[in-house]
Amino acid sequence: RLLLEPALTEPQCRAGIVLIDLHSIDTRIKASGLKLQLCTNETQATRESFVRKLRALGFDIAVAQVTAPAPAACHLLRERGLRPHLLVHDDLVPEFAEIDKTNPNCVVLGDAAENFTYANLNEAFRLLIGMEKPVLISLGKGRYYKETDGLKLDVGAYMKALEYACDIQAEVVGKPSKRFFESALAELGVPPEQAIMIGDDIVNDVGGAQQCGMRALQVRTGKFRPSDENHPEVKPDAYVNNLAEAVDIILQEL
Amino acid sequence: RLLLEPALTEPQCRAGIVLIDLHSIDTRIKASGLKLQLCTNETQATRESFVRKLRALGFDIAVAQVTAPAPAACHLLRERGLRPHLLVHDDLVPEFAEIDKTNPNCVVLGDAAENFTYANLNEAFRLLIGMEKPVLISLGKGRYYKETDGLKLDVGAYMKALEYACDIQAEVVGKPSKRFFESALAELGVPPEQAIMIGDDIVNDVGGAQQCGMRALQVRTGKFRPSDENHPEVKPDAYVNNLAEAVDIILQEL
Repeated sequence: RLLLEPALTEPQCRAGIVLIDLHSIDTRIKASGLKLQLCTNETQATRESFVRKLRALGFDIAVAQVTAPAPAACHLLRERGLRPHLLVHDDLVPEFAEIDKTNPNCVVLGDAAENFTYANLNEAFRLLIGMEKPVLISLGKGRYYKETDGLKLDVGAYMKALEYACDIQAEVVGKPSKRFFESALAELGVPPEQAIMIGDDIVNDVGGAQQCGMRALQVRTGKFRPSDENHPEVKPDAYVNNLAEAVDIILQEL
Repeated sequence: RLLLEPALTEPQCRAGIVLIDLHSIDTRIKASGLKLQLCTNETQATRESFVRKLRALGFDIAVAQVTAPAPAACHLLRERGLRPHLLVHDDLVPEFAEIDKTNPNCVVLGDAAENFTYANLNEAFRLLIGMEKPVLISLGKGRYYKETDGLKLDVGAYMKALEYACDIQAEVVGKPSKRFFESALAELGVPPEQAIMIGDDIVNDVGGAQQCGMRALQVRTGKFRPSDENHPEVKPDAYVNNLAEAVDIILQEL
């Protein structure tokens, strides 16, 4: 049995405040023998820098323990011989270092933040509309997220803009895609019924994991909203108040 | 009987080349006693500057002869007591000069071009998501258009981005909205069965006008594509090769 763990530590990182003692959680998970994989839709940084942030917070994980959209996209690009034009955050570019980007035959869209300029969006659009069969790969389909200086449009909004302009459907890499959860399971080497997802996002974390055959706990922090408890389609296997409580419950069950 | 006329002269204006002798067309229409109304989705300039451009090309029309999305939006804003936050082209702002824009309770979106910055899009999004019932008014829903330096994403793409992020539906002002064609007819004071639309856009011009009860000719210039002749839903009343030919046919029928 193992524990899949999403970007639940992220709100703490972003706000710069550690709300939960990640180090003690990490220690307890390690002592229990549970395997841990972080399953994140983060596309504003490489896994390396993500891992550095978590280590600074006392959460000792390796790069291979992070399942993230960019490496998943690289896998897909190689598999299909695609050469991407990247419209992503500058800090994510290193993830694509070994991918051939000459003469692009697809567009990879991430949360490009300040790189979402009028010129860059037009450029991505022109490349797509010029392709015989436009291929748009989107690293997630989030609507928006919160930063210290306010709400920001997420990659999903820009994906919709390009989809509409080109009359196409993007291929979404990242949660809640089944393929994405499967690659996290493959990394751990366990079948879905032996895995538990802990997440704050009712659709992307809980719904996605359950569709893949895993059980999933929803944490009442971060993106959680009280209305999630009446979600018309997704019902978590259990609710917990925070990550520490989730770990408590799982360790008790062992 | 009258003649409704779209932005068919626009390609000529934009490219700076007069492909058709607009002045002679104008003279013939005037001599015939036909009433003329221009029905445009142009939102990068005021009607005044639009009229100036056409006059320079020999097409002598008055501002009241132009039905355009911005004044239609102003009408709607007044009717419903809405105070807009504008995300539009700088050159369009004067159309909203007399509208109260303090403490906005809706967002008006036009083809803002260079004003489609990451910061401006986030600002419009934050205002919308902060409203109890977000109201997004979009001046058209075009996918893209061509300029001398290449294809550009049109207002429709950005409308879709905001719709998705806020989980709302925009209210579209402009062609092909029935209300928009009706206001053009009202300006002319004739019922739809006495009007003919001439346009190059199969959906926005031809389809929109027909849904309003008018007849519509499609011109094989501008946005026209050969595939339009097999359009699954819209069938023009006739095809013509250009604006001059359309006018010939209509004058012969008188």
